[in-house]
Amino acid sequence: MKREWELLHTPGPTPIPPSVDRAMSQPIIGHRGQKCKDLLKEMTPRLKTVFGSSQDVQLITGSGTSALEAAVVNTTSPGDEVIVVVAGAFGERFAKICNTYELTVHQIDVEWGKAVQPEAVEAVLKQHPDTKAVFVTHCETSTGVMHPVEEIAQRVHKLSEALVIVDGVSSIGGAKIDMEQSGIDFLVSGSQKAMMLPPGLAFAAIGKRAWEVIHQNDRPRFYLDLKTYDKKLQDGQTPFTPALSLLFGLEEVLNLIEEEGLEHVYERHQLMKRMTREACKALHLPLFVSDEDASCTVTAIKPETFEAEQLRKIANEEFGLLLAGGQQHLKGQIFRIGHMGYSRPANVLQYISVLEIVLKRVGHEFEAGAGTAAAQEVYLTAARELV
Amino acid sequence: MKREWELLHTPGPTPIPPSVDRAMSQPIIGHRGQKCKDLLKEMTPRLKTVFGSSQDVQLITGSGTSALEAAVVNTTSPGDEVIVVVAGAFGERFAKICNTYELTVHQIDVEWGKAVQPEAVEAVLKQHPDTKAVFVTHCETSTGVMHPVEEIAQRVHKLSEALVIVDGVSSIGGAKIDMEQSGIDFLVSGSQKAMMLPPGLAFAAIGKRAWEVIHQNDRPRFYLDLKTYDKKLQDGQTPFTPALSLLFGLEEVLNLIEEEGLEHVYERHQLMKRMTREACKALHLPLFVSDEDASCTVTAIKPETFEAEQLRKIANEEFGLLLAGGQQHLKGQIFRIGHMGYSRPANVLQYISVLEIVLKRVGHEFEAGAGTAAAQEVYLTAARELV
Repeated sequence: MKREWELLHTPGPTPIPPSVDRAMSQPIIGHRGQKCKDLLKEMTPRLKTVFGSSQDVQLITGSGTSALEAAVVNTTSPGDEVIVVVAGAFGERFAKICNTYELTVHQIDVEWGKAVQPEAVEAVLKQHPDTKAVFVTHCETSTGVMHPVEEIAQRVHKLSEALVIVDGVSSIGGAKIDMEQSGIDFLVSGSQKAMMLPPGLAFAAIGKRAWEVIHQNDRPRFYLDLKTYDKKLQDGQTPFTPALSLLFGLEEVLNLIEEEGLEHVYERHQLMKRMTREACKALHLPLFVSDEDASCTVTAIKPETFEAEQLRKIANEEFGLLLAGGQQHLKGQIFRIGHMGYSRPANVLQYISVLEIVLKRVGHEFEAGAGTAAAQEVYLTAARELV
Repeated sequence: MKREWELLHTPGPTPIPPSVDRAMSQPIIGHRGQKCKDLLKEMTPRLKTVFGSSQDVQLITGSGTSALEAAVVNTTSPGDEVIVVVAGAFGERFAKICNTYELTVHQIDVEWGKAVQPEAVEAVLKQHPDTKAVFVTHCETSTGVMHPVEEIAQRVHKLSEALVIVDGVSSIGGAKIDMEQSGIDFLVSGSQKAMMLPPGLAFAAIGKRAWEVIHQNDRPRFYLDLKTYDKKLQDGQTPFTPALSLLFGLEEVLNLIEEEGLEHVYERHQLMKRMTREACKALHLPLFVSDEDASCTVTAIKPETFEAEQLRKIANEEFGLLLAGGQQHLKGQIFRIGHMGYSRPANVLQYISVLEIVLKRVGHEFEAGAGTAAAQEVYLTAARELV
């Protein structure tokens, strides 16, 4: 039968709120017309708030990776020394882009499933004082780790002029971040995670120091030349035809975030994280990441008593519950649950109670209903108004 | 904030599948054009299967009540004797319509929350052998009772020529019924229950014996004159402008039902009924209806330790979980959960686990997670392929 009943809990793409769906189905307009200008001008200050940025947020029509690449090509020149924290597939992607663009990469390899220690970044920076930029992933989607990017930014700036460039693809709109206050110079995100949109739009929030570097940078670039984005945005435009439907949707996403309140959005994600993790503990499901290092948008589990892929298969076939597997060497070793964006405590209760059935199917032993009860207990001890 | 996250579990209206939503947003067409004719002609035989009817199902643009009224005005004349089973608000509605149209109503009053005994109908019919029609509700939405309409029909036909006219508004598309085999003469339904559509479309399946009565009936009627519906339908039309968007949606509903398989649809509803009821028992929630009399589309609970309305209020405000209250003398006494149409076992798990939190809020005592575990147990003991 048709899969009209999927429960999408991958760590991106994520479900779309109905009102965003409706907003996206508005008739397409001319992207050089006044309506589109008005829309972009109206959204720009609102996006700054979500990114905690004092500067305009640039909109790139592309996957999140296009914004990662934009961060590299706009701020560096061949031969530049950079530090890249690699603790998973998305750290690796930053490193790969940096290598492609002929940078001298000082790679900090962190065990997958653990957060980088800010001291480790400090140490490498001291060894390589000419470092031009430090690249670090906020939420490492492949492992469910949240790296302490704000602390890293503060420490880097005490030691050096290096830019701190952060991949916030699976965190922005879910995890609290204050770009300005922490001194993050360049913060990138995508539309299909906590921003509750389909894939196809990328965001680049760029601080003043980074803009200075970008304006002086003479590396050849065209589609991803952020100078042209910024120039056009002054006139309420994008340099190239933007993904208009996603812009319509973004306006409604901003409405939803503002109506809920950004602080409440962050608290809701923390609550969903804790509900999920306490449920896993009650179900004797080994969490892949410690409580301290864990992301509030994605939870990874490394089962010992059954095959992760078997659980995913049954969850998918029997309930339409879509979970993610592991990447690279973690393939078949872990499974990941996304709880971000258009997701609420009632969704956590649903996937936990569904998972309990699937766990029975794969022969995992636990007390019936214990995971659901644990998640409920977390919810009940949280403030009542936080739902 | 916007209520983009409601969990609609009233016993109608019910949630709309996304593909039905999309189907309904097709551009409006002329209702006398070939496209509309093709659509109606294509849907007619498919609807017969859902109603278990050998005759075409008539589509009335109106609430379910319009079809109840159509059943009365097309088959009776002033002064006719009729039997009406009244065991809730919808039985009362049938009686009210019959009284409005000056029929001599022999009303069988059944305690709300109980099913009528077929013997009771037999007994009244023997007292009033000139009875022209017996009106009975299949699923009494106001109490969550499923009346044994098929057995009633068989018994009535052994005794008399009276038509058996059934209100299937909250059962068709969820509860198994074979109109033809059981001898039901007139079966009415609405779009907004297990048929997974918005309100606004009513269905009337009419057997051969009923058609004979209708054609001889000279009571004045216009909008609800079924003769004109039948005549127009031969040409793939409706007598008056139909709710076109609902027709577009109905085609997709039929796709969904056929892809799942009608038998599977029925089994799914039985499963959701049992999951819900066993969860209630484990949570010490008094069920208003016995297992034998209970509907597979709606479950009523009569709490003793808390106020039903308080539970509904918290469920609504905190989780967007919409449940129904009681009607008339049951107002404030019961609450009702709809589990029909676009609803699956994972939805049952969700509302049960949400309800457990709400029950804690209202001070009801139970073992944490016990309801969820009970629902899971019912699911797990059912066939695996039944999801």
